Parts: sequence; C-alpha cells; structure tokens
Amino acid sequence: MAAFTNQQLHYRSDLFGRLRIPGPKSRNGPTRVRMSLQENAPSLAVVGVTGAVGQEFLSVLADRDFPYRSIKMLASKRSAGQRISFEDRNYEVEELTADSFDGIDIALFSAGGSISKQFGPIAVDRGTIVVDNSSAFRMVDGVPLVIPEVNPEAMDGIKVGNGKGALIANPNCSTIICLMAATPLHRHSKVIRMVVSTYQAASGAGAAAMRELELQTHEVLEGKQPTCDIFQRQYAFNLFSHNSSVLPNGYNEEEMKLVKETRKIWNDSNVRVTATCIRVPVMRAHAESVNLQFEKPLDEDKARDILKNAPGLVVIDDRASNNFPTPLEVSKKDDVAVGRIRRDVSQEGNHGLDIFVCGDQIRKGAALNAIQIAEMLL
Amino acid sequence: MAAFTNQQLHYRSDLFGRLRIPGPKSRNGPTRVRMSLQENAPSLAVVGVTGAVGQEFLSVLADRDFPYRSIKMLASKRSAGQRISFEDRNYEVEELTADSFDGIDIALFSAGGSISKQFGPIAVDRGTIVVDNSSAFRMVDGVPLVIPEVNPEAMDGIKVGNGKGALIANPNCSTIICLMAATPLHRHSKVIRMVVSTYQAASGAGAAAMRELELQTHEVLEGKQPTCDIFQRQYAFNLFSHNSSVLPNGYNEEEMKLVKETRKIWNDSNVRVTATCIRVPVMRAHAESVNLQFEKPLDEDKARDILKNAPGLVVIDDRASNNFPTPLEVSKKDDVAVGRIRRDVSQEGNHGLDIFVCGDQIRKGAALNAIQIAEMLL
Repeated sequence: MAAFTNQQLHYRSDLFGRLRIPGPKSRNGPTRVRMSLQENAPSLAVVGVTGAVGQEFLSVLADRDFPYRSIKMLASKRSAGQRISFEDRNYEVEELTADSFDGIDIALFSAGGSISKQFGPIAVDRGTIVVDNSSAFRMVDGVPLVIPEVNPEAMDGIKVGNGKGALIANPNCSTIICLMAATPLHRHSKVIRMVVSTYQAASGAGAAAMRELELQTHEVLEGKQPTCDIFQRQYAFNLFSHNSSVLPNGYNEEEMKLVKETRKIWNDSNVRVTATCIRVPVMRAHAESVNLQFEKPLDEDKARDILKNAPGLVVIDDRASNNFPTPLEVSKKDDVAVGRIRRDVSQEGNHGLDIFVCGDQIRKGAALNAIQIAEMLL
Repeated sequence: MAAFTNQQLHYRSDLFGRLRIPGPKSRNGPTRVRMSLQENAPSLAVVGVTGAVGQEFLSVLADRDFPYRSIKMLASKRSAGQRISFEDRNYEVEELTADSFDGIDIALFSAGGSISKQFGPIAVDRGTIVVDNSSAFRMVDGVPLVIPEVNPEAMDGIKVGNGKGALIANPNCSTIICLMAATPLHRHSKVIRMVVSTYQAASGAGAAAMRELELQTHEVLEGKQPTCDIFQRQYAFNLFSHNSSVLPNGYNEEEMKLVKETRKIWNDSNVRVTATCIRVPVMRAHAESVNLQFEKPLDEDKARDILKNAPGLVVIDDRASNNFPTPLEVSKKDDVAVGRIRRDVSQEGNHGLDIFVCGDQIRKGAALNAIQIAEMLL
C-alpha cells in the first residue's frame, strides 16, 4: 500500500499548484552526470509554464535529459515575474509577446487554444517549431497530429536546424491514451469500429479543477455546501458528462475529438468511432473502456502478446487476483496501462475485444507526448 | 446548489450505517393518515434488515404506504437484539432461523446469496413468497426475474393469499438501471446489440464499503495511508475494475449478470450484450454508458419521446446548459434518469443510439424494485 501513499503525496504537490523543482535525477545512481544543458542543443520556450501541463513539461524535460542550450519560461502577464528553479538554475517567468520567439528553436505550447491561435503562427514565422498541446490546429490539413509510438511518419521532414518553423499538434489526452492501446491491435487486424466510454480525471480541466475537487471533498466530508466555481456542480463523490460544449449532433467536443483525431492519426477516414466522455472524481489519470470490432479475427491471446510488446504500454491483466489498471497506479507514470483484455461475447468469433486502458492525463496525455515529439525533431 | 447539500446530508446518514427511522410521511400535507398497518394486509419479514438494502426496504415500505399487518425484522445472530423503530413502533431484530417464516406471507431477502440459498427454499416450503435481492436464484429456470416496469408478466399467477410459496428474483442493480432505459426503446425497435460501461457506486458492496470510501477519503486528504479492508486497494480518488470474481472468459460476474439477465428479462436469447463494470468513488448511485444497436431504424427524437413517456424514468437531456444525469441527482430518488440521447455516429443511418443512465443503486437498483414486485403480489 506504500506505493499508493507515495503517489498520493506526489499529486498533492501538484494539486496545490506549487511549482515543482525538478533537480538532477539519479535513475542510474547518484553519480550520473546531467547532460541536458548543452551548447549545441536547441533553444526552448515553454508557453504556459505555470499551468499544470507547463509544470509537467519541465518535469519531463528533466526526467528525460532533454538537451537544450537555453530555456525561456513564458506565461501570461499575470504570472510574469514569478521565479522558477529548474535544473539548478533560476528563471523568471516572462510575459508571452510576439517577440518571445526570437531565436527559439522549439516552443512547447500549453496555454489554451486562443493563445495557440494567436501566438503559434507568429512563432512559426520566426522559424520556431511549435509543439502545441491545444486543440487549435489538430484538425488543420497539413498540421501533423502525432503520437510518436503511433504515427511518427506524419512529421517526416520537420527537423530543428534548418531555420524553418512548423506546427505540430499534440492529440487530445483521451485520444492518445486510447490509441496507445488500440493502435498495436489495429496494425495487426484492422479496427473497423470502436465504442469508447471514458472516466476522465480533474487534471484535464487544469490545476484549478484539481484544487476544486480537493476543496469540495473536504467540504462535503464536513457537511458543508461545496464550492462550485469550475464546473458549477458537485464533483466530489459524483461524476458528470464532460464539461466541453455539446455540438448539434449531441456529442460533446471531447467525444468528437476521439472520433476525428482517431481518423486523422490512423489516416483512415472510414474507421467508425463513438465515445461517451465522463468526468470522474480522480485527480490526474484517465481511464477508458474500449470495445473494438476487427475486420479480421484477432484472438485475445494474440492481442495480449501484441500489447505486451507494444512501446509505451504495460499490460496489467491478472484475472486470478483481480488486478487490472487503475488511474492511481499510472499517475506520474510514463506508460499507459492496459488490461481486461477479453474476447467480446457480443461479437461473432474473434471479431471483437474489450479492453480497459489507464494513462496519466498530464504526462502521456499531454506533456510527455509533446516532449517525445520534440525529441524526434533533434 | 442547496439540493446537492441536502442529498449529501441524506447519504451521510446511511453512510455511517445508522438505522434510519422512517416515520409517517407527509407527501400530501401534515394531516395525511398513514394506511400501511392494516389487519387484512399481508405479514412481512425483512431478512438482512440491518444492511444497507435492508434499511432501504423499511424506508421504501414507509414511503409507499405498503400495507402490512405485521413485520418481522430478521438478521444474523450477530445483529439479533438490536432495536429498530419503524412507523411509530419498536421492533427487536430477531435471529434468522428455519422457523422465522411461519405465518409470513412475503419475505424480502437481502442478506447475500448463501443466506438466500439456505433459507429461501425453507421459506417457500412454509408458504412464503420470497422476493430475493441476491443472485442465488436469478438464472434458475422457473424463477421469475422481474423489473415491474419491464416484464411484470413473468410473475403472472403468483399472489398472496393462496397459501403457496414462491421465489421471485430481483435483478442485479446494474441490469435494472440499464434496462429501465433500454427496454422502452427495445419494445419499439428491437435491440440486437448493447455495449455497456458502468460507473458503479460503493453501495453495491454494502454499507461497509461506503464507510471505507469515506474513511479513505479523509485519510488521503490528510496524507495518511488509506485503510484498505474491503477492496484491498485505494478507492478514494481512484476507480477499479469491479471486485466480483473474474470468470474463465475474462468477464467478471457483474458483467455476465448484465449479459445473462438481459436475455432472461427480455426473453430473448439472441440479444448480444457486452459490459465493462467499473467501481467509481461515488456513494450510492450507479451510472452507465450504453451503446445500442437496433434491428430497425430509431431516430433520436422518437427515442427521446419514448423515454419521456416511459414509467419510472426521467429524461435529463439539456444540451445547451450541459445538464445531464448525475449519480448525485438520482441519489435517494425512485426514478432512473436518462440523457445524452444521440444518434451513434459510428452506426449507419438511425440504427444506433448512445445514452447515459443513472439510478440509485440501493433504491431502484435493489429495495424499491423488490417492493414494487411485492406490491404486485397483493
């Protein structure tokens, strides 16, 4: 049980919105030399550095020894002047302006769609390669929408060092987590239909939503009326349809992202996807129940083998001890977990599978995926 | 927001396992005369009266003015001797024995499958009609499995007063809540396949699980290691695959109940159902994401009309204000709520619909449904 408590403490430090101070990591023992600050490496900018994903960008950059010669911390005017300590150096958060991108090779954006729409093209004009975590450009023709384990070829030809700016979009968190597990199966036996129900964490709505979930939980336990500033409803001990706008077809935007982004990432306009997206009172990792229909048979043992050998994926599928993926277990982890792998009894033969997937929304669902994209630019 | 706080307070009184003391209700004003204690009415027994569902049996009996001439409060030896005040009278909890059913017309059982298997047949031999909330007899040929709004005809001929005992099974909570919404549609345009993902409350695992969820939540908020007596894992701010045993086909028992009970209740051995059952940190109401495939087209406007006119169902489907069913809203309510009614974009024409259903697990998922069955016996 100790592991749970550690993870609990981890997310609490995020939950309260404290700036994390990633220092040199010691994965290989205390004598490991940190390699990330290098003169010939690219110059970086992090846009939205004070947000939940922005903070995770820094954490992942440090964890992965991402090489850089400089890093600029950018945020709104309101956050400008805040101090951030990162890899033994102190930085001041600067206000994002049109001039912020002069001399920047790679900019990691996570400051919302309107900021991306305004400043993304400016950065590209200055020769910066923008990896954008917002939905602003995901469905724009010509903008690669990339999960590095799934469709790295979509960004072929985009490299740091030729002075050319470019936009690359990070898919939505629920799409990334779903396709990390569905794609290896799809590559083996084409998926023709997918029915997804999500169990989405507070973090997808930002650090303020995580704080509100904790505040509300305190209040409800004390018998007080819960504070409902973010979602206008009780979130503690409750769940609700995803808070994104509902479109004329009755799907909300989050659901249609799963439908449309899957088609673009798989480069398959015929794949049929439906989704129901639900917000549950979990802090920072999403879960998804995914029902798959295959063009050709795929039995569950073969599927399990495929998933066990897939990059970025861990199989947790212990039926005897009822041990399957949970959001808490994958919190702060890079890997997406998949389990409950079984033949769908409602489909003929081996044409269907049910699986259950969990992934950290802030990490693989956002920051890690973006930085994996950036690594491919080097 | 006041309504949420009231509901919150309601479930807290259950949460702590206190015996509720339903008094005369005043739905029609303070002068209403309580009609339930009547000389010519049946004699009742409640088996498992100190449990979460047992307590709800009493609450629903009182709410619905269920007529009775006597009521026997039965539980295990451990609980015998406890005092219960019900409708202005005091009762002592008696130990359940083979002799408990002498002279009892109707017994409401909710004490687990093994108690039902042991004492159900004994009660029937004594001429008692048993309405059993356990899974013990649900799939036994000849035992009606009944949702009164769905298949009342299954219990035709079973009546109080002819001295004949009988067994009637209450379906599983997740089956009841799903079929309350799916059946009216199925009656209009046959459902040929259903893909269900559940979001199940603590209450399904009993009052102790509800207490543990609350205790764990306190502990986690205080940074303490959570107490994991019931589920052997952290439940607070987490979710996990349903705790029932996993069968050789990879489905857990809860999921196969949805598959098999649907076929029996609909009297349709061909309906194809798959389910993924997940426990979420919610107290007493289940939610279910249900994807339906129809034999013949059924458009969403027609579906909404059908659901609006269905008994025991309330439609909450306000796209403009993003207002859809939530478990908290249906907690302590009789009606099952349905919303997110929309044409499934992954199916051709109008052959598919997605819906989202919420229902109180203890009430319509267990106690209310059983007492509605008992009402049909009168």
